[in-house]
Amino acid sequence: MGTESDGTGHGGRPGEARTSLPEAYDAGLYFIGRIHTPWTRREDCPKNAGGSDAVCTIALDPRWEPGLAELETCSHVIVLYWMDRAPRDLVSQKPAHYDRARGTFALRSPARPNPIALSVAALVGIEGPVVRVRGLDCLDGTPLLDLKPYFASVDAKPDAQVGWRARER
Amino acid sequence: MGTESDGTGHGGRPGEARTSLPEAYDAGLYFIGRIHTPWTRREDCPKNAGGSDAVCTIALDPRWEPGLAELETCSHVIVLYWMDRAPRDLVSQKPAHYDRARGTFALRSPARPNPIALSVAALVGIEGPVVRVRGLDCLDGTPLLDLKPYFASVDAKPDAQVGWRARER
Repeated sequence: MGTESDGTGHGGRPGEARTSLPEAYDAGLYFIGRIHTPWTRREDCPKNAGGSDAVCTIALDPRWEPGLAELETCSHVIVLYWMDRAPRDLVSQKPAHYDRARGTFALRSPARPNPIALSVAALVGIEGPVVRVRGLDCLDGTPLLDLKPYFASVDAKPDAQVGWRARER
Repeated sequence: MGTESDGTGHGGRPGEARTSLPEAYDAGLYFIGRIHTPWTRREDCPKNAGGSDAVCTIALDPRWEPGLAELETCSHVIVLYWMDRAPRDLVSQKPAHYDRARGTFALRSPARPNPIALSVAALVGIEGPVVRVRGLDCLDGTPLLDLKPYFASVDAKPDAQVGWRARER
């Protein structure tokens, strides 16, 4: 495990650390569609999903369109997508807007062993294979992995605390 | 697209439908640990994550252990895991406990193009590479994909509705 820069802006900050990656993948993913947002440069993206109420469109590969049946009855959708521009070997990292490095699993950074991002989005409408939502913060063209109905009974924990965030300057 | 059984209990119920899968995967996943639960048979698993308060343990591959730093300050953790025993080509399906078939993306069924499951678990404690939580419902030995801090500010939507669920008998 070392600390060095990879030229992407990840891995060169104090306290950042890397690990060795496994030699092979254990499973494979299909990109099932693309997410279209107003943001084409990383620096333009909102800092988190609460940072914009822009309507974004999710264009599903037509082969999956029948899978959307009755999703239109849901007020909120869990969107899983793939962020493959970040290194996967960082175990400790300092996002630019935080005061110091923390463990990868304590952060929502795109740099993680499996760069699967998760956003809870408000459903605006569905037409054919196109789903319109509010509450995404990703780059235009981001690959889609999954859509799921959001069940408040198991997914909503309004009293949840992130201790390090509360202490962050 | 056809409707036929694959012998696993998926795909043979009225209204179920399949699509053709893409010819190749688009990205690869690492299994970064294993989840240990009291349930070794599918029929013994709780129906959903709210169905049991058993403490489950997540054993991370030691190479990722430094990534846990400061996760212990979080009350709730998003757990992503891999459910590879179900078919990936079902677009419409009828889980046994529901009244009729619905689109895959309107359901939390393990049968989906990318079988990534998501549970919000209450953090009990962390010792070395082992994370103890309450609120999982998966089989013992399930592969772990990711751990994330749960941010109530963006992840909690306590008023979210699933219309079809409210109408389900």
